[in-house]
Amino acid sequence: MRRHRPGAVPGAEELHHNHNHQGLGGPHAGRKDPLDRAAVQGDNTPEVLTRALSGLSSRWRNMWVRCILGIAMFSSYWLLIYTGPIGLIAMVLVLQAKCFHEIIGIGYVVYNSYKLPWFRCLSWYFLLCTNYFCYGETVVDYFSTGLHLGGTVRMLMRYHRFISFMLYLAGLCMFVLSLVKRYTRLQFYMFGWTHITLLLIVTQSHLVIHNLFEGMIWFVFPMCVVICNDIAAYIFGFFFGRTPLIEVSPKKTWEGFIGGYISTLVFGILLSHVLCGHRYFVCAVEPSGGTAARAAAFTMECEPSEMFRLTRYHAPALLHHVTGIESLWLYPFQLHALALSSFASLVGPFGGFFASGFKRAFQIKDFSSSIPGHGGIVDRVDCQYVVGTFTHVYISTFIRAPNVNKIIQQLLTLKPEQQLQIFNQLKDQLLSRGLI
Amino acid sequence: MRRHRPGAVPGAEELHHNHNHQGLGGPHAGRKDPLDRAAVQGDNTPEVLTRALSGLSSRWRNMWVRCILGIAMFSSYWLLIYTGPIGLIAMVLVLQAKCFHEIIGIGYVVYNSYKLPWFRCLSWYFLLCTNYFCYGETVVDYFSTGLHLGGTVRMLMRYHRFISFMLYLAGLCMFVLSLVKRYTRLQFYMFGWTHITLLLIVTQSHLVIHNLFEGMIWFVFPMCVVICNDIAAYIFGFFFGRTPLIEVSPKKTWEGFIGGYISTLVFGILLSHVLCGHRYFVCAVEPSGGTAARAAAFTMECEPSEMFRLTRYHAPALLHHVTGIESLWLYPFQLHALALSSFASLVGPFGGFFASGFKRAFQIKDFSSSIPGHGGIVDRVDCQYVVGTFTHVYISTFIRAPNVNKIIQQLLTLKPEQQLQIFNQLKDQLLSRGLI
Repeated sequence: MRRHRPGAVPGAEELHHNHNHQGLGGPHAGRKDPLDRAAVQGDNTPEVLTRALSGLSSRWRNMWVRCILGIAMFSSYWLLIYTGPIGLIAMVLVLQAKCFHEIIGIGYVVYNSYKLPWFRCLSWYFLLCTNYFCYGETVVDYFSTGLHLGGTVRMLMRYHRFISFMLYLAGLCMFVLSLVKRYTRLQFYMFGWTHITLLLIVTQSHLVIHNLFEGMIWFVFPMCVVICNDIAAYIFGFFFGRTPLIEVSPKKTWEGFIGGYISTLVFGILLSHVLCGHRYFVCAVEPSGGTAARAAAFTMECEPSEMFRLTRYHAPALLHHVTGIESLWLYPFQLHALALSSFASLVGPFGGFFASGFKRAFQIKDFSSSIPGHGGIVDRVDCQYVVGTFTHVYISTFIRAPNVNKIIQQLLTLKPEQQLQIFNQLKDQLLSRGLI
Repeated sequence: MRRHRPGAVPGAEELHHNHNHQGLGGPHAGRKDPLDRAAVQGDNTPEVLTRALSGLSSRWRNMWVRCILGIAMFSSYWLLIYTGPIGLIAMVLVLQAKCFHEIIGIGYVVYNSYKLPWFRCLSWYFLLCTNYFCYGETVVDYFSTGLHLGGTVRMLMRYHRFISFMLYLAGLCMFVLSLVKRYTRLQFYMFGWTHITLLLIVTQSHLVIHNLFEGMIWFVFPMCVVICNDIAAYIFGFFFGRTPLIEVSPKKTWEGFIGGYISTLVFGILLSHVLCGHRYFVCAVEPSGGTAARAAAFTMECEPSEMFRLTRYHAPALLHHVTGIESLWLYPFQLHALALSSFASLVGPFGGFFASGFKRAFQIKDFSSSIPGHGGIVDRVDCQYVVGTFTHVYISTFIRAPNVNKIIQQLLTLKPEQQLQIFNQLKDQLLSRGLI
């Protein structure tokens, strides 16, 4: 697919041929598409790996390539975790831009839209605007009171929504002005394509970053269980897979799904036990305060909250009956871990099915060929986004207390009489509970 | 276009013919499309009107039809305003559903997708989910502390985001499960089409309703200036229009644009002066409290804030020089009115251009033929959405103090030591300003 770059625009003839793209996949479903062909050609497994594995059957070779690259990716991920929140935020940003690039790239190929006026520019402009809005909101919410900022930054924060909206509107106006008769329909398709991508990729990345601020565990744990589920489902499917699971994703099997589910639950319980023991993971990530120059530094020091302190639970009746164990020492977080792991292995895969359906709809094998054996970045992170968003909603419903920083900030912008009203109400509350 | 209902599915032959829809409008741009034909046939001007105006040329007849229907619509709008916020919220809801219906309907025709499994169901399900989420958020934000609610409602409010997210996910899973080989690509197109529509229609409707709670003026004023701008631009264009304004919308002229701008500014200043004098318009809309049964009642009583009290301003130098007037009595709101009117007449029309471009892209004349002379609902409200969203952002950046209700609600969910921290910080603040 990568072959079809603007630098190598296909000839006018091919353009004309593809132009009648199939509204209904129906009659042409079996036909090899240029997209598919390109994806097959695009296998960029390192030469050394290809040679080393040349003795194996293609099925096993593929497994080894996946395995080696998987280990490489996972190791880099753990290295990133040790660089702290900044590294992880940067990772999310980079992955987001790469996913956007891959999906938009497919749109360009599907619609043969290399010649659309301004469009490449505009879609990246929209990406920038959306990111400006999202990250700005995060900065305003979490960092605005702790830091001493200069006038310009304060202005940018004060009028953040307005500025973002005007930037977006400017993009919209440019889009309208860029409309030309010959390509109008195509321009609208690409507009829609860009916006759906923004909706799926940018907003979800933003939510995932918010998880990070609640404590690294809320970011690292869901990612790890998804990885575990992917691997376990692949291995169980590889060795025991017989019964196909779902039509859109013919390689997935019930054996893999169920094996993945059970392994993920066990892994989730164990991993959460390990992570809960480290302050690095359980403390909320907070800006270290001070000047804007230090804004990029975070502290993760705290007295762990109750959720991360070992607590004695009664053993479930069945466990007690079978093993005689009466009580268990668990971190309360492990119960949340159970909920997250179950979601990651039962509903999470639908993110993958959705991506598979999308790939089948546009007759491509992988989103790109960036990672040998794995496909594109989107192929790897499809389930991550679903689970990350679930974690965000889970935290904001069941876990998070409102942001103290934000409340103070809002309080101080109220009118004096309103501040007084709240003050008195709070005073009564605190008095009645004997806290003051 | 309305002819193409599922009840009247076009014959298999026509289906096959349309199926090769043009990815690039190019070579077929001049050809009459079934869509276009249907839109022309669909003129449902009442018989009595057609007969009464039969003596006029088509250009003047069209103007009279527009005029009469316009007056009818505007009168019903004012009647609705007198029924209060409930009526207006219901209006936004109905318009939203109708817009959604019109746009989705075009998608069905464009993709000939009557036979897609489950899709009509699914898209309305997504509409319901999104509305459940949006209106639920509004209720939680504005009404949760003032009302005495039963256990179930409290539960629904407490877990609102989680419930909405799960409902949405259920829809997504149903979508994935409904994918069939033959129609996969089409199903993804319609999925995208539905989501873009949701993004444009539902989220913006939601923002417009929020404007209402700040005071009816924030809802009524922008709507009226948009209507004024539409009418003035039409009239100036009708009588003086010569120079075409923009390619996508060939009927719009520079004369209409400029005439509309000036008229809208003048009208905005006058209208805001009138509206500012009525508490009904300037007071924040608040739930009247009490039991859930009374939740639907609103009060609009208050001491108007400074923004709505006549204030003396120095006349601008030019005005002073020409007329000798030294000072002006204005409501401060009138300055905001000026900003809103300028936006409505300069940037607002881009909403209309966007809609025109869309119509041209899919070769339809109007979104539907619900309103004789005006087209569909979307044709009438395209600019309203842009201006409504602008007003929302404008209010939240320049006007609105944070919601007291929400702050108290958040305060009470904090941990005791955090409440104490905020209490002390607030106390110091208030003491230092001598307020306690």
